[in-house]
Amino acid sequence: MDIYTEQDVIASTSLSTTYSQVRKKTVEICAPLSSEDYVPQPALFTSPLKWHLAHTTWFFEEMILKKLRADYEAYDESFGFLFNSYFNSIGERTSRHQRGFITRPSVNEVYQFRAYVDDQMTALLEESESDKLNQLVTLGLNHEQQHQELMLADLKYSLGQNPLYPVYSENVNYINQRNTEEGWASLSEGVYEIGNNSKGFAYDNELGRHKVYIHDVEISKSLVTNGEYLEFIAAGGFNDFRYWLEEGWTWVNEEKATAPLYWKKVGSNWHHFTLNGLQPINNQSIISHVNFYEASAFAAWKGMRLPTEFEWEAASSQLKWGQRWEWTNSAYLPYPKFKI
Amino acid sequence: MDIYTEQDVIASTSLSTTYSQVRKKTVEICAPLSSEDYVPQPALFTSPLKWHLAHTTWFFEEMILKKLRADYEAYDESFGFLFNSYFNSIGERTSRHQRGFITRPSVNEVYQFRAYVDDQMTALLEESESDKLNQLVTLGLNHEQQHQELMLADLKYSLGQNPLYPVYSENVNYINQRNTEEGWASLSEGVYEIGNNSKGFAYDNELGRHKVYIHDVEISKSLVTNGEYLEFIAAGGFNDFRYWLEEGWTWVNEEKATAPLYWKKVGSNWHHFTLNGLQPINNQSIISHVNFYEASAFAAWKGMRLPTEFEWEAASSQLKWGQRWEWTNSAYLPYPKFKI
Amino acid sequence: MDIYTEQDVIASTSLSTTYSQVRKKTVEICAPLSSEDYVPQPALFTSPLKWHLAHTTWFFEEMILKKLRADYEAYDESFGFLFNSYFNSIGERTSRHQRGFITRPSVNEVYQFRAYVDDQMTALLEESESDKLNQLVTLGLNHEQQHQELMLADLKYSLGQNPLYPVYSENVNYINQRNTEEGWASLSEGVYEIGNNSKGFAYDNELGRHKVYIHDVEISKSLVTNGEYLEFIAAGGFNDFRYWLEEGWTWVNEEKATAPLYWKKVGSNWHHFTLNGLQPINNQSIISHVNFYEASAFAAWKGMRLPTEFEWEAASSQLKWGQRWEWTNSAYLPYPKFKI
Amino acid sequence: MDIYTEQDVIASTSLSTTYSQVRKKTVEICAPLSSEDYVPQPALFTSPLKWHLAHTTWFFEEMILKKLRADYEAYDESFGFLFNSYFNSIGERTSRHQRGFITRPSVNEVYQFRAYVDDQMTALLEESESDKLNQLVTLGLNHEQQHQELMLADLKYSLGQNPLYPVYSENVNYINQRNTEEGWASLSEGVYEIGNNSKGFAYDNELGRHKVYIHDVEISKSLVTNGEYLEFIAAGGFNDFRYWLEEGWTWVNEEKATAPLYWKKVGSNWHHFTLNGLQPINNQSIISHVNFYEASAFAAWKGMRLPTEFEWEAASSQLKWGQRWEWTNSAYLPYPKFKI
Repeated sequence: MDIYTEQDVIASTSLSTTYSQVRKKTVEICAPLSSEDYVPQPALFTSPLKWHLAHTTWFFEEMILKKLRADYEAYDESFGFLFNSYFNSIGERTSRHQRGFITRPSVNEVYQFRAYVDDQMTALLEESESDKLNQLVTLGLNHEQQHQELMLADLKYSLGQNPLYPVYSENVNYINQRNTEEGWASLSEGVYEIGNNSKGFAYDNELGRHKVYIHDVEISKSLVTNGEYLEFIAAGGFNDFRYWLEEGWTWVNEEKATAPLYWKKVGSNWHHFTLNGLQPINNQSIISHVNFYEASAFAAWKGMRLPTEFEWEAASSQLKWGQRWEWTNSAYLPYPKFKI
Repeated sequence: MDIYTEQDVIASTSLSTTYSQVRKKTVEICAPLSSEDYVPQPALFTSPLKWHLAHTTWFFEEMILKKLRADYEAYDESFGFLFNSYFNSIGERTSRHQRGFITRPSVNEVYQFRAYVDDQMTALLEESESDKLNQLVTLGLNHEQQHQELMLADLKYSLGQNPLYPVYSENVNYINQRNTEEGWASLSEGVYEIGNNSKGFAYDNELGRHKVYIHDVEISKSLVTNGEYLEFIAAGGFNDFRYWLEEGWTWVNEEKATAPLYWKKVGSNWHHFTLNGLQPINNQSIISHVNFYEASAFAAWKGMRLPTEFEWEAASSQLKWGQRWEWTNSAYLPYPKFKI
Repeated sequence: MDIYTEQDVIASTSLSTTYSQVRKKTVEICAPLSSEDYVPQPALFTSPLKWHLAHTTWFFEEMILKKLRADYEAYDESFGFLFNSYFNSIGERTSRHQRGFITRPSVNEVYQFRAYVDDQMTALLEESESDKLNQLVTLGLNHEQQHQELMLADLKYSLGQNPLYPVYSENVNYINQRNTEEGWASLSEGVYEIGNNSKGFAYDNELGRHKVYIHDVEISKSLVTNGEYLEFIAAGGFNDFRYWLEEGWTWVNEEKATAPLYWKKVGSNWHHFTLNGLQPINNQSIISHVNFYEASAFAAWKGMRLPTEFEWEAASSQLKWGQRWEWTNSAYLPYPKFKI
Repeated sequence: MDIYTEQDVIASTSLSTTYSQVRKKTVEICAPLSSEDYVPQPALFTSPLKWHLAHTTWFFEEMILKKLRADYEAYDESFGFLFNSYFNSIGERTSRHQRGFITRPSVNEVYQFRAYVDDQMTALLEESESDKLNQLVTLGLNHEQQHQELMLADLKYSLGQNPLYPVYSENVNYINQRNTEEGWASLSEGVYEIGNNSKGFAYDNELGRHKVYIHDVEISKSLVTNGEYLEFIAAGGFNDFRYWLEEGWTWVNEEKATAPLYWKKVGSNWHHFTLNGLQPINNQSIISHVNFYEASAFAAWKGMRLPTEFEWEAASSQLKWGQRWEWTNSAYLPYPKFKI
């Protein structure tokens, strides 16, 4: 995913200021959109922009205002039903696959909902102060920042359905970053500590600091470039089952995949669809938007493997990170001390 | 489908006036909509309202302006690709299942496209006159009227996805018409003539007047009411395979159907979703929006059958028609003299 | 379908003899099979051979022996559940899609079931005589003959899944029949009588003799040959939407169809899979095993159309029929006098 | 899965004797089967028994006889195509989903193939001796033992499709084992060595002995019983999303699961389908044939979690294992030193 550079929400500024900044950022992401752009859900793993916009607001209403303000009046009780992703039992919320068909409330109404909740939250933050409030607001803002990333990803996927390759914004250009380091980060065999140990915000699944044993390993300091990936394609990488995991090879064949999702060959030149429309691929730039199977196959072709999340985290002080979300070889499993 | 009362486009008024009236009606249908309402395509058999709006305009541009005005400049050449339903070969147009994801051009642009084409058409109709032009415009206007019906049907289906039962318009009330006749229309055995024989507009598949032999039959002059259909449901009609065609029974079981699509039981009272939101069912009103299987099963339960299209057409002078689209027992097959 | 030449079951021989002959024919069809060949159901529209074998026997047990012999003891009551296709309500019979997984009772047991029922039927036919019995047995034998055709069709489909192109029998060669007539059968406009009027057996949906009006039409006396169909393919027929019905064109694209189902190009030579294994296609032979869409598209390419069932039946005295099942342009709809 | 007690193939007996014993065991598993039982493939994750029987033989032909005997003549070259699971590229083998439709070669021919290969293997084992041969035969025999387990699992799934609950063998009764231990196995925090270190056979993915860091944990010495699982069901475990992983909860809802796959309530008594037919559930017996989601949900309901594979392996000396395949909380990922 194109990386959205987060503001650090545990800044020295007041919580109220941080609240305003994060909330404003969400609206800024939507600035280039027409109201129609907020509607579609072209795949089950995406959500409409309007849903993101309402859902992030719903969080503050449901988790904070309703709980901490005895006299709080909900903006509209039906919104909980429409924009809630939390309660997983059947029938209590709009089916996920129907999200793209819900044209009402309108985008304007959702902005009014945001304004109403923002007013109430600002009042609350000015009149009260508690660790509980602080924690919940911090959680809500981090949750909103996660959705900001999803909004950009979902928007790219949605605009990518349009054969005219529409431009979200001419000023968005996450895709041409280059490596500034080369060589290898080394880890020596031994016990390493894993899990969040900063004082700042962390999700519960990042907590539970614990030890892991890591063997000697080297991780590349540079990320894979478009040019390197083109070599893999040119070498027949998408036609050779030896590089692919079983599930990945099934995916290649079912999708008849011959290149990453957003790559299109125009004449003899590779392009990729970006938030800035269709652009020529730059060989020196770091690759984006390859899936796990594609990343894993590339590594196998190189005679390497993806690092585990533990190796990556242990080596992270040696790496320039934050340029891309990076794939690891680990499944998403709870830490040993994790409690539901 | 709720029946939209067509204006007769072969009126005594000028073709230019008729053009304006029909085109205006399309826009009027859209008047209650937000721009988001134009976007979704909740099922493959529906199209987004924006698509209807653009496609009907595209017809006049492609079939008339490009052909009859040598110097015509298309509004935007890419629109043919997006809004064309005609050329059926692969790859030449947007996949039908993607229509609901195309947010650009925006609704506003599509209205500008309409205004541009309307200006050009008005100029053409004022400056020239020919049988060919007359025929093509008449075809285009009838085509647009067909889409006006589809727009209302698709809109109802789309709004019907919303668990809040939104209202399209409080002034729309096609659903409470009642029967004004009773008894039976009789046909005596013999040869009847079928196929359009009026001087007015007809689609090519209505032409080819020909003879059919019809046996003695009686057709009810009154249409089935909601109350009668409720009796069928109460008698266990949806649980008894004897009344259903093989394919219909498969449909009942796959959909776990227990009542027509838009019918919802609220507490112990039946309601139906309408363009005026969720409304109580009126037992005396004529039923709408049952599918062919449901119509056929009701007839079988009554010990009758649906009329063929030929029986219906031969008896049509005896029937009060135009209140509903009525199901017949005939397949949609070409007339004997039909040429592709 | 390869045409199985029916014995006329209303022969001058005794009903008991006819019973034996028809029942024996079913067993003869199975003679070349291994017990494994009886098991698979490779598509929902096929049934395992064992199912056909048991179901045809079940008919005589259920419809005749249980009804007409007070002291009849069923061979095994569970067989009704397994081999019954009649009662369509959910849960009363094995799901159609599971038929290929039912390995028990074994083929041997099913043959014992046949022998048991045949003994009982023979005794019944020797000891009693009635119009009712005569009617039911005649129905059962015609039903069995229908299944004999299905057995050959299903077997071909099933063996056709095997990449080794197995041979059912070297002596089966329905596919190389040639046309013995040419020219056109003409019908003059007028009223024709349709529906069975022979004294022999007919299914209820063939009864209800009635009149239809037919317009001037000519029907080819010769059937389409493989060579003619190859011309259609060579002319790009499978790539040109103009010849295909909407549904047919969808089928072509979904299946990526480029030739009839059983046709395979080996090197530059067309072959087809037959009950005698993979065989070169003979250009002069009448084509078999094209679907309705393929037949209809061929006719459209020739500037013609398929005849309706009424035209075909009215012209049938002028045609050499029985060489193939022939497609018509009519839907399978009840005759006007048909009662469920 | 019901656990098949493996013979230790690295016994003191000669390799030739071991070869005969393992190969004979496969045939013994098939002894109660009719030839029809060998055919079906009721789900993509199962294979027909005939396929297992042929595939295990194909391994010895392809990997040993063709490689080590210069003059070896394959039994039938087409078998490689039909019974090969190894080469994963498209078109080189029978589609996995078609395995249940391949009735030829027959079961008898597959047994002749086994006999031919067994003769050749016996000759080879008597006339030559090498580490390479020893390794390959040991691998082939372990591979065959894996398939022996799959055969029983697939057979149970296949017979389980039959509404008559057929009995594979009255002498098979893996399901009523009871716990012989109770209490908890404890692991103290520290570094543990993981991976095979015995001299005996191991698959390549069990090698690569390496260190892992494990935190304090206790693992139950007794396995979950049917009675305990019934308590989970009775407590509404299948209706409460809190116990289920996201993917598991989706599975529950899609399948409308209310109990493990083979459990059926007959009247008010729980039974389960076993290789010995439908049997009452014994509350004291260890549960079998629950899937990962069901195991994980049960643990969550108990306020626990499944052990990781590392915890389980480190504690394995304290546990009585081999009674069941046990679910862990780990994904199937390569060890750090694994090389493709």
